Amino acid sequence: MRNILLTIMYDGTEYFGWQLQPDHPTIAREIMKALERIIGKAPTLYVSGRTDAGVHALGQRANFYTDSSIDIFKLKEALNAMLPSDIAITQAEEVDIDFNARSSAVNKTYMYLIYNMRYLSPFFVNRAWHIKHNLDMERMRDCAEAIKGEHDFKAFMASGSIVQNTVRTVYSLDIEKQENLIRITVTGNGFLYNMVRIIAGTLVYAGSGKLNRSDVEQIILSKDRTKGAKTAPACGLYLKGVNYK
Amino acid sequence: MRNILLTIMYDGTEYFGWQLQPDHPTIAREIMKALERIIGKAPTLYVSGRTDAGVHALGQRANFYTDSSIDIFKLKEALNAMLPSDIAITQAEEVDIDFNARSSAVNKTYMYLIYNMRYLSPFFVNRAWHIKHNLDMERMRDCAEAIKGEHDFKAFMASGSIVQNTVRTVYSLDIEKQENLIRITVTGNGFLYNMVRIIAGTLVYAGSGKLNRSDVEQIILSKDRTKGAKTAPACGLYLKGVNYK
Repeated sequence: MRNILLTIMYDGTEYFGWQLQPDHPTIAREIMKALERIIGKAPTLYVSGRTDAGVHALGQRANFYTDSSIDIFKLKEALNAMLPSDIAITQAEEVDIDFNARSSAVNKTYMYLIYNMRYLSPFFVNRAWHIKHNLDMERMRDCAEAIKGEHDFKAFMASGSIVQNTVRTVYSLDIEKQENLIRITVTGNGFLYNMVRIIAGTLVYAGSGKLNRSDVEQIILSKDRTKGAKTAPACGLYLKGVNYK
Repeated sequence: MRNILLTIMYDGTEYFGWQLQPDHPTIAREIMKALERIIGKAPTLYVSGRTDAGVHALGQRANFYTDSSIDIFKLKEALNAMLPSDIAITQAEEVDIDFNARSSAVNKTYMYLIYNMRYLSPFFVNRAWHIKHNLDMERMRDCAEAIKGEHDFKAFMASGSIVQNTVRTVYSLDIEKQENLIRITVTGNGFLYNMVRIIAGTLVYAGSGKLNRSDVEQIILSKDRTKGAKTAPACGLYLKGVNYK
């Protein structure tokens, strides 16, 4: 039995997210269908974490077990030949039998893109959040300081989620602007449901003058989702990468 | 009478190029339709140069005459509200009555994108030429030297074109690589039909070891299109900008 780890890039626009769903195209279904054609059987995919409808990935990871002896380079080439053009396998490697793309992860990095101009570039349709008014970068960076570190992020979790332990550590939260594009990059040991999109929403509120650093501190302390900013749209979110030991 | 100059960005994937065509969506038709709704009449658009089906633009320019007294900022906002999301007006300005987006142009800059990896990034589908084998950047840059300057570029013009004077000056031709993306940027006083795509095709032949610098010099001297490399696909081409005095 071999354990194979895939690194996957996708434009999530046309999909109902990662997870298998009846009657809807999903990323997992496309990959399983392609694997079935190549190795004769659709394996279970162990993903680092599901992504929602419309969310993209630059470096999603998923592993699966197979008895197939197919050469790893040929497997990758065959997958890319069969998959639709909005999904690409950027890497395929054999890993230890007890490796799991989810539980072996040490930390994850997400990117959130904001196109900040009166018009939206045609090249970022469905690929960034369009904010027309000017955002104050200094204020966004100041509020980001309040989010960094270990906190109980209950106020940054979609209401209705039922996770018990809502303490997470944000190792870094960087905001850079290049021409009209604002790129938020956040690395943490784990993220609650919608947490990155709520962070992006909070930073946009900050950049719009609606929140300052102490407001953000108070929101975190409140542990109350209703006190915070709105959730940023899915189309701006990219799973950038997953790090393993 | 006012003369208004638009700067236009578009993803050309879904269009049959710039120029009006019966029964086909084109960039000019979309802009004229939107202008008709805003100023009550579809004006003639004077474009810096037509783009072909599938070709993109970051800074296309077109002017038109109107009697409308509409505020220029409002005109731009209304256009962006009405145009499909793959066309954006990035600038609108009033110019001298005798300004013409084509004949007033001093030079133009095109960009050509090549995605150089075994797989194609989902984010560059229809937006770059996918070349799987590794391209030799040094050899591409060496061959670019042969193209720079004033030459009779008849060998770099689509066969069937009927332009009399085929002498053009290429002021700069730069090739840079960032991760898997090769970006060719070329500025010239004018370009023959398909000239930039033939330059891109020639540079890819060079990077693949099929041509060296003296071969390229010989191709130019031959003035014979059949001696050269194949024309690169439209999807990698972007009209980056047009410069006026």
